[in-house]
Amino acid sequence: LAAINVAILGASGYTGSELIRLISNHPYFRVSLLTAHSESGKDLNEVHPHLHSTLPLKNFHEVKDQLLEVPLIFSCLPHQASLTVLEELLESGYAGKIIDLSNDARLNPKWQYGLPELFHEGIVNSKLVANPGCFATAIALGVAPLIAANLFEKLPIIANALSGASGAGKTLNSQFHFANLYESAFAYKIGTHQHVPEIEQSFSRLNSNFPPLLFTPHVVPMSRGILATTTIFLKTKSSLPELHEVFDTFYKESPFVSRTLVPPSTKEVRGSNLCKIHLNFNERTQSVVIISVIDNLIKGASGQAIQNGNLLFNFSEESGLSKLGLFP
Amino acid sequence: LAAINVAILGASGYTGSELIRLISNHPYFRVSLLTAHSESGKDLNEVHPHLHSTLPLKNFHEVKDQLLEVPLIFSCLPHQASLTVLEELLESGYAGKIIDLSNDARLNPKWQYGLPELFHEGIVNSKLVANPGCFATAIALGVAPLIAANLFEKLPIIANALSGASGAGKTLNSQFHFANLYESAFAYKIGTHQHVPEIEQSFSRLNSNFPPLLFTPHVVPMSRGILATTTIFLKTKSSLPELHEVFDTFYKESPFVSRTLVPPSTKEVRGSNLCKIHLNFNERTQSVVIISVIDNLIKGASGQAIQNGNLLFNFSEESGLSKLGLFP
Amino acid sequence: LAAINVAILGASGYTGSELIRLISNHPYFRVSLLTAHSESGKDLNEVHPHLHSTLPLKNFHEVKDQLLEVPLIFSCLPHQASLTVLEELLESGYAGKIIDLSNDARLNPKWQYGLPELFHEGIVNSKLVANPGCFATAIALGVAPLIAANLFEKLPIIANALSGASGAGKTLNSQFHFANLYESAFAYKIGTHQHVPEIEQSFSRLNSNFPPLLFTPHVVPMSRGILATTTIFLKTKSSLPELHEVFDTFYKESPFVSRTLVPPSTKEVRGSNLCKIHLNFNERTQSVVIISVIDNLIKGASGQAIQNGNLLFNFSEESGLSKLGLFP
Amino acid sequence: LAAINVAILGASGYTGSELIRLISNHPYFRVSLLTAHSESGKDLNEVHPHLHSTLPLKNFHEVKDQLLEVPLIFSCLPHQASLTVLEELLESGYAGKIIDLSNDARLNPKWQYGLPELFHEGIVNSKLVANPGCFATAIALGVAPLIAANLFEKLPIIANALSGASGAGKTLNSQFHFANLYESAFAYKIGTHQHVPEIEQSFSRLNSNFPPLLFTPHVVPMSRGILATTTIFLKTKSSLPELHEVFDTFYKESPFVSRTLVPPSTKEVRGSNLCKIHLNFNERTQSVVIISVIDNLIKGASGQAIQNGNLLFNFSEESGLSKLGLFP
Repeated sequence: LAAINVAILGASGYTGSELIRLISNHPYFRVSLLTAHSESGKDLNEVHPHLHSTLPLKNFHEVKDQLLEVPLIFSCLPHQASLTVLEELLESGYAGKIIDLSNDARLNPKWQYGLPELFHEGIVNSKLVANPGCFATAIALGVAPLIAANLFEKLPIIANALSGASGAGKTLNSQFHFANLYESAFAYKIGTHQHVPEIEQSFSRLNSNFPPLLFTPHVVPMSRGILATTTIFLKTKSSLPELHEVFDTFYKESPFVSRTLVPPSTKEVRGSNLCKIHLNFNERTQSVVIISVIDNLIKGASGQAIQNGNLLFNFSEESGLSKLGLFP
Repeated sequence: LAAINVAILGASGYTGSELIRLISNHPYFRVSLLTAHSESGKDLNEVHPHLHSTLPLKNFHEVKDQLLEVPLIFSCLPHQASLTVLEELLESGYAGKIIDLSNDARLNPKWQYGLPELFHEGIVNSKLVANPGCFATAIALGVAPLIAANLFEKLPIIANALSGASGAGKTLNSQFHFANLYESAFAYKIGTHQHVPEIEQSFSRLNSNFPPLLFTPHVVPMSRGILATTTIFLKTKSSLPELHEVFDTFYKESPFVSRTLVPPSTKEVRGSNLCKIHLNFNERTQSVVIISVIDNLIKGASGQAIQNGNLLFNFSEESGLSKLGLFP
Repeated sequence: LAAINVAILGASGYTGSELIRLISNHPYFRVSLLTAHSESGKDLNEVHPHLHSTLPLKNFHEVKDQLLEVPLIFSCLPHQASLTVLEELLESGYAGKIIDLSNDARLNPKWQYGLPELFHEGIVNSKLVANPGCFATAIALGVAPLIAANLFEKLPIIANALSGASGAGKTLNSQFHFANLYESAFAYKIGTHQHVPEIEQSFSRLNSNFPPLLFTPHVVPMSRGILATTTIFLKTKSSLPELHEVFDTFYKESPFVSRTLVPPSTKEVRGSNLCKIHLNFNERTQSVVIISVIDNLIKGASGQAIQNGNLLFNFSEESGLSKLGLFP
Repeated sequence: LAAINVAILGASGYTGSELIRLISNHPYFRVSLLTAHSESGKDLNEVHPHLHSTLPLKNFHEVKDQLLEVPLIFSCLPHQASLTVLEELLESGYAGKIIDLSNDARLNPKWQYGLPELFHEGIVNSKLVANPGCFATAIALGVAPLIAANLFEKLPIIANALSGASGAGKTLNSQFHFANLYESAFAYKIGTHQHVPEIEQSFSRLNSNFPPLLFTPHVVPMSRGILATTTIFLKTKSSLPELHEVFDTFYKESPFVSRTLVPPSTKEVRGSNLCKIHLNFNERTQSVVIISVIDNLIKGASGQAIQNGNLLFNFSEESGLSKLGLFP
């Protein structure tokens, strides 16, 4: 099989760097072109010394013509810039496939929302994929089976999630200064995080009668990882075996979802494309507490993008992706 | 004013060490006797080098007679051992005051539950005080005003809380091995944590019609600090100004509760006896998300014990306690 | 005793915030005026929520006249700006005392270098004190007794030191982004750090025949703390008891230096003004390895500034300063 | 090529777990047998949830006969137990190859010391390899070219190194309790660490006139990573270009040593088998400061063991090993 050339736009950030690392271990993809904005002209070693590579970072405008020939483009450009650039490429006649890791196109009907465990069919038949947000991935995968099975009472779903610092990207900000975040935890954007519409859109495609989501994100002193704790009220009596049956059936074709008997830690999925999910049934309040953990840069971003790329090219969904974490 | 001698039972742990540190800065209390179990015979420097002190740690049985003369005893003994020892002292004729930091007596009607912001009157008139749990303090202080004001819909209150490692004490355990917890987060005892009955007992004293609590604790990579995120559903329309009014009225005599306009971080109360609380009203789901942060070893343990001690001796509630955190 | 009013220039940074916290517990000093640059006009709560205070931050130029009346000024202004501002005050007729925490005046003969354990006499008789650097404090206190006692072989002294992130201040910088520094360690300014001349100046005042210093600083993932490991070669045979005797004699009047029998950790001096020092004699290489730890913001900055302030006003050297650390 | 079956003794620890992870990505090796002591009878998921595997952990005595048939055994057994077990296997007629990751055989003349960059030839011709210690790897690789080139003054080499917590293994110990180590750093075994003879043995094979080593290890709050800072005095004038030439020539056949122009961080080699080395020439003291970083569990243990395994079987030295780090 000849290698598929891929280009990465915005390769100077964390998701770009993870894509390069994952593709270095992919059997069919091969990085052929990297762009960056303020870091263009440098080589990878200067920007990402951990990648141990002298590949050059190019200026988008100088390589636009070459991009038109590349069969797969990953865009790691910032939110609110990415879609503009991608539409410019499409208008210039780009006919290949694109996976956009930004927020920009996730609610856009021209783009397929790329959560493979829920929308496998749609992705396989697409050319333009909007890669989901990290919180959205963890929360939606956790509750999707119960939403689809219509087991819920129509009361708000309460999601609280914890993220490490890399979720906010490389941009400097006093909240992510080491001395401020170390030994600290805080909540932000309570009820107003931009992933809420994206998650509710996924719910709506599983069940038109879905309940609203109240979501509170938090930052804790980790560099990677997301843990979501989601509470959903049930409308009828249930039991843990019944809920396990619902989950296991829903995910029987999903190699990257793993149900655990004990609550999983974020560190056990660090570096892995797995989403581990634990269910706790609380009889007293007729509710289910769902713990889901992912690596925000792998299953929550670049690993999921590779998974989508595999589907776009009819490769095995698992190509180039690991289920083993780097621990400790 | 002559100093009040105090004894600390179980001074080799974190809460004992914090009591010693706080009392060193207290205008009226003075440490006169320290006991320890396996560490008895050593001096403080060996067990707690940060205390820079050569005070000796004694064996309880050898100093039992001296304890009978001490007007105030703090017990930092382990859960399930503390009450047994304290009852032995009481049976031996101990007539002074006791503040027990363990779980043992918190649901025991002979002991006053020592959350000063809710039960000030009862504490002032007590001799035996059961000092609250750390999660219980953060969660109960967060929702108490809404419980008391009867504003809630009778649906479960959903509390998710984050704790640093010191909450679990010094006992060695693989979950708290540095290499395992660093860069990790996990949930535990979902719906079954021992602080739930203690919190609901507080609710019941504020409002007999209180809703049930569904509580999920988490450990995150910090050494100190608790952040509780509690969601409560309202029965009628409300607004943030109205909720602020309810809170501010409820806590107008409480020097250690501070309402914040932005979500507080755990680090800004590290080393302080403050509980900072932030309210977010979510109109769409008719619910309130409450963020409360404390230092688990100060307001969640030893600082609160000093606060209770101040009330027992009619000192100013703030004596020896700081509202300033050690940051960064 | 009437309180001494003090002003803090540049109160929006870490050292300014620590001064405010320490002075809140000082028996004789009282904060009367705070200035800031870009944060002026705000109150402390906005900039330092952990200080729980509504004191206002003023613009220097607007309060310059008031500053002329304040008997003690601490300058926490940035390196290369501080001395300019202070000279402007002196030229305007300021006749009070000044303690400058910046690098600017440490090699300036008009200013007394403020390391109290080495230059107590000079400080007591000064009005202008240049507060030492954090690395300089840890390293100089560690080797000073051996330098003074002329025990060394004239070979380079090798100092390696570890610092937390707060040593670099609040300025945003990608090296101190949480995601970059967490789980990382790196060396910088090898052999060229700006504290070298300051340390050698101290050596020269103890012994004109002092050896050169080769210093390599490192950053490790902590928010606070410095640990210096300094190796010095001896010219004649020695023994640990002899070295202990030299040290203990040298520091017999120094309440904030404590020699430890086991290597101390940075955390046991967090929040304390102590410098803990451990000596290891290596017979095979005829050398001494000295471990010294301080809290970079206390003994390495603001605590030492208070200690200097105490000397300037003939207060007890220990006023307002704690030897107890906040642990864990 | 048919897969080579390998067995791992002591697979329940960190180095065993890393071997399993690395072999899962190796083109020629395949895990066929795992043993554990107290954890035998469990499957990998219970002991190492991050490995996402149900392979069973066996009791050594029950599978001893099977072990005799396995062509390659990695021993991750504890120091002081490993060699006893391996000698028992050899006495029972084991005729395959063994790589021992413990300290036990590193000074034993029957075993080849397995630092491939220094002793490639010896390893290729061996059946029994003693895998080097983590500190020993970082320090020896850093100074070996200067030792071999005889450029040094015969004064002690001063090495200071920083390690994360995983270097001490999984055994519970209060120094590695999260609450104790977080935000802390400390030195230990000053001048007496067990890796000193191992490092000097390497020096002696490069140059019989080698200088003595004075080594001070430190623990800093990381889970992985080693950074060694080594100072060596030169006997004649030199320059950075000359030193670079010496290094680059020495390591021209070593794919896992990389010289960097800026001091490397431990995090940029996390998950990688690289040793990055930076040289700083200090003209004033006629000395060289060498910074070397490795991942203690990869190049400092399991990755190096795979590298040795590759040499034993004449595979490419790089098989199954990555030079890319997992960052951030």
